[in-house]
Amino acid sequence: GMDEVPPPASPAGLSAYVAVSQMLGLTLLVTTGAWLGRYRGGVAWHSPLQFNVHPLCMVLGMVFLQGDALLVYRVFRHEAKRSTKALHALLHGLALVIALLLPAGIVAVFESHRAKGIPDMYSLHSWCGMATFVLYLLQWLLGCGFFLFPGASFSLRSRYKPHHIFFGISLFILSIAACLLGITEMLLFKISDSYSHFVPEGILANTLGVLLVAFGLVVGYVLTRDDWKRPPLAEELALSMDFKTLTEGESPGDSS
Amino acid sequence: GMDEVPPPASPAGLSAYVAVSQMLGLTLLVTTGAWLGRYRGGVAWHSPLQFNVHPLCMVLGMVFLQGDALLVYRVFRHEAKRSTKALHALLHGLALVIALLLPAGIVAVFESHRAKGIPDMYSLHSWCGMATFVLYLLQWLLGCGFFLFPGASFSLRSRYKPHHIFFGISLFILSIAACLLGITEMLLFKISDSYSHFVPEGILANTLGVLLVAFGLVVGYVLTRDDWKRPPLAEELALSMDFKTLTEGESPGDSS
Repeated sequence: GMDEVPPPASPAGLSAYVAVSQMLGLTLLVTTGAWLGRYRGGVAWHSPLQFNVHPLCMVLGMVFLQGDALLVYRVFRHEAKRSTKALHALLHGLALVIALLLPAGIVAVFESHRAKGIPDMYSLHSWCGMATFVLYLLQWLLGCGFFLFPGASFSLRSRYKPHHIFFGISLFILSIAACLLGITEMLLFKISDSYSHFVPEGILANTLGVLLVAFGLVVGYVLTRDDWKRPPLAEELALSMDFKTLTEGESPGDSS
Repeated sequence: GMDEVPPPASPAGLSAYVAVSQMLGLTLLVTTGAWLGRYRGGVAWHSPLQFNVHPLCMVLGMVFLQGDALLVYRVFRHEAKRSTKALHALLHGLALVIALLLPAGIVAVFESHRAKGIPDMYSLHSWCGMATFVLYLLQWLLGCGFFLFPGASFSLRSRYKPHHIFFGISLFILSIAACLLGITEMLLFKISDSYSHFVPEGILANTLGVLLVAFGLVVGYVLTRDDWKRPPLAEELALSMDFKTLTEGESPGDSS
């Protein structure tokens, strides 16, 4: 029965892992900045350096902010679900805006390609990155529609939720994979002759790749550890019980 | 109480997803073979084509077989755990052998580099790939030690299991990411001049990348869907209950 389960306490270790994730996230930004600043001439808008806006915006928006948006349910575990949801949607929205418009992580590439006469969307990096971005925007719109606006029923939300979580984590992983592909592309475009001689730029950019993987692993660990899941508040549990009693036997396989 | 939960039935949809994963896996092999055969001169041992052994072995061992090894607990859900475990270890072992020794996915690269005077291990692909392979070997040894040989206690196994699962899925994802990096590297080494003109080889290799991601998504979906988890057999459940009664309150946070 329920009375055997101890009341949820703040899990030991969670805060440490979250702190490590935030330090890794900041290190990602610093490393990206160091690479672009020290070896690629820096970042500027309306100049040949416009392209360099792209990696910086992607690491900030599609990796760091997206990762933090996924973590809010674990970090603010005892807050009302409504506020945590709003923060989750806001961080994802901010990631989208930074990636697309302000100052245009993706737009920067198209502008830069047009300036240099390079075709768009031919590489595996661009295919993966663009697919990830479009699906991420779609997932955000669906998430807002299902969970934030009051129209969707409790039953519909319960059915959509596991898919939202699966695709959310998948898109986070795909974002990191697209970054790794972008790093490899940029190194082979810019330093193909010296890359194999272990020049500092190559080692720094490889290290950025390893840090991206490490960030993904730490965030993924926090998200998937069962005993770190956000415990439902008392009132949410009561609501869910009422609902279960009302719909018992309707579709037992779907309620995960 | 327990009596409210309906007895586990074979979940609808699981077989369809597993069938799709196997068709995707075969398509991966055919696509890799088509790329190497049609555009890269084919595959041969002891010749300049020796390098081409590497992508084929990696897609077969580190992606297809590794993915199938992860799926066995879902597919053979009503078999005794002992046999399913043995199959899981065997498929992972086969993946390792194919990747390393027979006929040497990784060894092929070092031999080929030595023949051409190219340094080893300078690229992000090699860093990610080698780290993944070494950790995969370690994970396999730990898995055999904890779960296959009779020495480890039930308590130790329960504690290690969630970490084994998390790192297992992480290594599967990292293997796919390393393949995507390898595809990008190979295209930029071999067809850097024509890649941006949407030549067939570029499109075929990009498609291989998309198929690798699709395989990862389908396998990941099957593995993480809660109601598709392998139900414990009656005798396993009884054993686990006995154990829980014996150790109640010892470490409630750890049993996930």
